Amino acid sequence: MSELKLPVTVPSTALFTDHYELTMVQAALHAGTAERRSVFETFTRRLPEGRRYGVVAGTGRVLDALESFRFEPEVLAFLRAHDVVDAPTLDWLADFRFTGDIWGYPEGEVYFPGSPVLRVEGTFAECVLLETVVLSILNHDSAIAAAASRMAVAAGGRPLIEMGARRTHELAAVAASRAAYVGGFTSTSDLAAGFRYAIPTVGTAAHAFTLLHDSERDAFTAQVESMGTGTTLLVDTYDVAAAVRTAVAVAGPELGAVRIDSGDLLLVAHRVRQQLDELGADRTRIIVTSDLDEYAIASLAAAPVDAYGVGTRLVTGSGHPTCSMVYKLVARAAAGGPDAPLVPVAKKAQGGKTSVGGRKWAARRLDADGVAEAEVVGTGAVPAELAGRELLVPLVRGGEVVGREPMDDARARHVEARDGLPLSATQLSRGEPVLPTEYV
Amino acid sequence: MSELKLPVTVPSTALFTDHYELTMVQAALHAGTAERRSVFETFTRRLPEGRRYGVVAGTGRVLDALESFRFEPEVLAFLRAHDVVDAPTLDWLADFRFTGDIWGYPEGEVYFPGSPVLRVEGTFAECVLLETVVLSILNHDSAIAAAASRMAVAAGGRPLIEMGARRTHELAAVAASRAAYVGGFTSTSDLAAGFRYAIPTVGTAAHAFTLLHDSERDAFTAQVESMGTGTTLLVDTYDVAAAVRTAVAVAGPELGAVRIDSGDLLLVAHRVRQQLDELGADRTRIIVTSDLDEYAIASLAAAPVDAYGVGTRLVTGSGHPTCSMVYKLVARAAAGGPDAPLVPVAKKAQGGKTSVGGRKWAARRLDADGVAEAEVVGTGAVPAELAGRELLVPLVRGGEVVGREPMDDARARHVEARDGLPLSATQLSRGEPVLPTEYV
Repeated sequence: MSELKLPVTVPSTALFTDHYELTMVQAALHAGTAERRSVFETFTRRLPEGRRYGVVAGTGRVLDALESFRFEPEVLAFLRAHDVVDAPTLDWLADFRFTGDIWGYPEGEVYFPGSPVLRVEGTFAECVLLETVVLSILNHDSAIAAAASRMAVAAGGRPLIEMGARRTHELAAVAASRAAYVGGFTSTSDLAAGFRYAIPTVGTAAHAFTLLHDSERDAFTAQVESMGTGTTLLVDTYDVAAAVRTAVAVAGPELGAVRIDSGDLLLVAHRVRQQLDELGADRTRIIVTSDLDEYAIASLAAAPVDAYGVGTRLVTGSGHPTCSMVYKLVARAAAGGPDAPLVPVAKKAQGGKTSVGGRKWAARRLDADGVAEAEVVGTGAVPAELAGRELLVPLVRGGEVVGREPMDDARARHVEARDGLPLSATQLSRGEPVLPTEYV
Repeated sequence: MSELKLPVTVPSTALFTDHYELTMVQAALHAGTAERRSVFETFTRRLPEGRRYGVVAGTGRVLDALESFRFEPEVLAFLRAHDVVDAPTLDWLADFRFTGDIWGYPEGEVYFPGSPVLRVEGTFAECVLLETVVLSILNHDSAIAAAASRMAVAAGGRPLIEMGARRTHELAAVAASRAAYVGGFTSTSDLAAGFRYAIPTVGTAAHAFTLLHDSERDAFTAQVESMGTGTTLLVDTYDVAAAVRTAVAVAGPELGAVRIDSGDLLLVAHRVRQQLDELGADRTRIIVTSDLDEYAIASLAAAPVDAYGVGTRLVTGSGHPTCSMVYKLVARAAAGGPDAPLVPVAKKAQGGKTSVGGRKWAARRLDADGVAEAEVVGTGAVPAELAGRELLVPLVRGGEVVGREPMDDARARHVEARDGLPLSATQLSRGEPVLPTEYV
């Protein structure tokens, strides 16, 4: 149990689990099927409507969660007190430690409908337990990373500041900063994200700071005296033109930046740039914020804007706050002991939600120019032509995490993966997935 | 620092804060304005498009967060190492403890555009620090509660099970369960929510459990032998009619429930009900799941459904995953020492985002039949006609939490508040806020 009164106190990640996962373990233990070798895969049946590609994010957090996935005494006491599972199952949980293998698309990689982004192999019981925590992390983080990637494309190399903490759950915000960084953002306003993930943090000032003081000049003077002339002054509390004049008068032409948070940003940015230049502050940067999304960012491409701050639309996935990834049993051992062969399995009932059985590999096929042309997903042996193009990498071997990597690697991988897609991938307009998924 | 390796490790809630809040404190300390008495208010300028009312949720979590809002040595070390603020500010933060007052709409209450749902009063520095954590919690939790409330209306008294953990951040999921409970849900699949908030947890079985076994009969037998005949069997892995036959054959007519997770739920529920009745299992309940939202729930009103399980659409606020609440300085002391009078303040620049200055009260005016007819928000004295109808209650006095209450109180309050609104409040169709906001 955490000694600190966090807003949410959870003693380990083992309770990020749905009730039925434990009762299924109980029933399978009772039936003698809990130890059947099983393969679960995480994938989506479709991308969010209109999106051209998905972005895998959260893999590093899945590995962290796995290492903390232990049923501590307090957790067991809770499960016992609420009759969630029976005594033999509690004993089994007390000793639980994931001992299987996990393969997955590395973080930052792009994905398409059917891409097996995470493959978990082990006994049924140890794999089924991970369903909820795996999906929570990948569904959330990948949704944010996909939005971030589109915004990064729209920003065309200009810095993107993640400012969405106030618009989402306080811990989702930290994960969102991380996913945004993987997807191409530059920095964050969220100190917890800086603390936890060493993402650079930045800040400007709020309208409240200006309103606190008896005049805008007093506020700017207070900020510049304390933070230095390199600071960013917020210029839209009263009158923008007057504020810019005051800002340069107070800070001099070395003023670091001004922030504009309302109004017609395209128009205002042009006016402010012209005014700054006339005042000799031609190196003072302009930062814009105010309900930006990838479309608004793109519409400012020709504006004299030096950085974008994005909040709400980033942390809510720009209209798609989750990815609809599912975690499905695709193969399990036939009856007959631990060495029994794997049998592909899949839901069959009519009415949708069917899936493709079998333990899968995935590879991205390139055309003659080296541009990706298909996401190929198959069972059995990988065709020779796709050797070296396989997408899944080992993340966990025999329960030991082997796939941890610096976040900057995921960030770089994402750029590379996106650059390898057909050009239409980065069109912001709604369309079909830019690669077809082929099953072989 | 937490000793447990949570997926996100944060040493206290003080880092759920944007960088600029600390730099504003630094500049205000330097300028001698940090101690000016200030009033901040949290409100929305509009409801999500088409919504008739909002639901306040998260207040209890704000109080928890406030009590843990301390700058621990590790936090200070981080801020020092990254030059976020200067040494005098670090000293000030080391001693920080909120000593002001907080009033707010009690949890479960409904709100409208302009409703001052949380009013924070104290020095500028102590109030501005709370901006991000207050907004994160209220924006997230209220969005979920609003969706939950609409779903509860649509369900018309049938139980609602929260099953969305896998679709959102793993800790946002816990808060979402809590907010859903406030908004009218009955139980949750999320064990962490059961552990943290004592919300009843429930579970059924996944398709994986059926697929694990050599036949559906084996799977049902395993589940019933272990969990008893009162369990819920999932009947849509292969063929629903065959599964229902097998389910009753295995469990007998005392079978607790069946779950249907795909297909045309209206049609399938009718068929399954008829089949269960014919098999003598007339008390076996039917639980439906599968991308339900308030509209899908409403469309099943005439179907023989006994409970709904809701995931994605609940935890993403049914299209509105955040509430756009803002936290604005509305009044602060004039120059001249701690006893100087409060001066109303507000952003004035053109281009939107203006707000109404002044420390506000709010009351709900009733018509002659006792039905709410207006949300009245004002500064100064409360008119005699609105005495006893005031909405803000004390939550924190002189830094001490005084407004904590059991979640069931918030849950009951929400039903009462919603029932006090005009009937059109509970229409699911898009419309205007059901009450106008009047400023006096």
